[in-house]
Amino acid sequence: MKVSEALEISRKIAEDVEKAVNRIAGSREAGVTVAMGKDGTPTKKIDRIAEDIALKILREHDLKIITEESGVVGDGETIVALDPLDGTFNASRGIPFYSIALCFSKTEALGGMFFAYVRDLASGTEYHSDGKSYRNGERIKVSETDDVRCNAIIYYPDRIYPFRRIRVFGSSALEICMVADGTFDCFIDIRKDGNGRGYLRVFDISASLFIARNAGAEISSLDGDDLWKKRFTMDERFRILVSGKNLHEKLLDVL
Amino acid sequence: MKVSEALEISRKIAEDVEKAVNRIAGSREAGVTVAMGKDGTPTKKIDRIAEDIALKILREHDLKIITEESGVVGDGETIVALDPLDGTFNASRGIPFYSIALCFSKTEALGGMFFAYVRDLASGTEYHSDGKSYRNGERIKVSETDDVRCNAIIYYPDRIYPFRRIRVFGSSALEICMVADGTFDCFIDIRKDGNGRGYLRVFDISASLFIARNAGAEISSLDGDDLWKKRFTMDERFRILVSGKNLHEKLLDVL
Repeated sequence: MKVSEALEISRKIAEDVEKAVNRIAGSREAGVTVAMGKDGTPTKKIDRIAEDIALKILREHDLKIITEESGVVGDGETIVALDPLDGTFNASRGIPFYSIALCFSKTEALGGMFFAYVRDLASGTEYHSDGKSYRNGERIKVSETDDVRCNAIIYYPDRIYPFRRIRVFGSSALEICMVADGTFDCFIDIRKDGNGRGYLRVFDISASLFIARNAGAEISSLDGDDLWKKRFTMDERFRILVSGKNLHEKLLDVL
Repeated sequence: MKVSEALEISRKIAEDVEKAVNRIAGSREAGVTVAMGKDGTPTKKIDRIAEDIALKILREHDLKIITEESGVVGDGETIVALDPLDGTFNASRGIPFYSIALCFSKTEALGGMFFAYVRDLASGTEYHSDGKSYRNGERIKVSETDDVRCNAIIYYPDRIYPFRRIRVFGSSALEICMVADGTFDCFIDIRKDGNGRGYLRVFDISASLFIARNAGAEISSLDGDDLWKKRFTMDERFRILVSGKNLHEKLLDVL
């Protein structure tokens, strides 16, 4: 599949999902649980609406799709990781901070990605990367700060950090893109469950990681390990640090 | 001053500030520091624009105004506490979460408030209270949950808490209103500086506290003390807990 085709498909999906989601965002109906997702979290009505629209379009193409609610669908050579609605809580409460994220990969590993797309469904702001990264068509790059007294997004602070400012908006795909474009200096997710596993799934973050990397970000696990050999599977979980190159080592020391 | 007049003035200010602020929100110009505010924090250009518009309208009336950038202005009997732009960082970066807050009081103490107004300047959502509290004209009330595994806004977590979900959006006036209308279960600010003083100023929170109280919220310091005898002064600082009544005592224990 060509990059131009991936962009065209992504944009069509995002526009259709945006219309449908915004029709019920903030309504009581939006947040009704309709099923249990294949990822083990409850599927809300607004998630289902978003995924149905996205899958209908994706299934017109020869793809293997990995998605939050339905798991793995199709058996094409090109892999698509899809989060049809990232920030379900916000969308269902009418908080204008939720997105759709999808990426295309030639291989089963994150390193095989060749195209990624994230759209802020409340504002319509569009991020994508074809190797270079863009916000509404304009090239973006990460911040160059080397000062840990920085503007951080962190899930969740568990002690006092040196950060100047902390934010938690509730859509990691969009928040990682806001590191890609320099709005924030870093995105950190240190959460772990009782077994020490992280919370982020592959479809939550792969698209935005590709966008951030191609905007100059350094990306790693909390131990500093590379993530690009990780695979597009339902059961992978991540704890990650995304920042500019001048800050990455310093943040690893802080965390 | 009558409540109807306070609403009319507030709405006129908010509409004018909204137009002006949204014209430069997200631009480089918005975040340029133009002076040092009377509160001791830098005044950005976007703050100055908002305050100039608000003060021009307020000064047509016989008021004593306490405001972030200019300090105390006028010597009328009715006191107005004004935050012309709460969420300056967000506004200057184009993140759609910033507000204007103002309240009217018969006395020098927070307990003298008789009208409060908060407007989400990105979405236009309007909160006000005249003794009852409203969101876009519809009565609102706080959540009734008694489960500490709740949806919390907290500046900033400094250890692991039992909350189900944590958010930090960056406009406390608006976030306290989102507790008033039940979108979130609590708002907590535990931050303190080297001298143990909080960060919230009187104009940051008084309007939204009045709205939250009249929507059924319990409001206190982190020690459980009443805040209504606190005075409208530039140097007061707050560390607070706002939640529904069923949750308040439990949260005081957790904090």
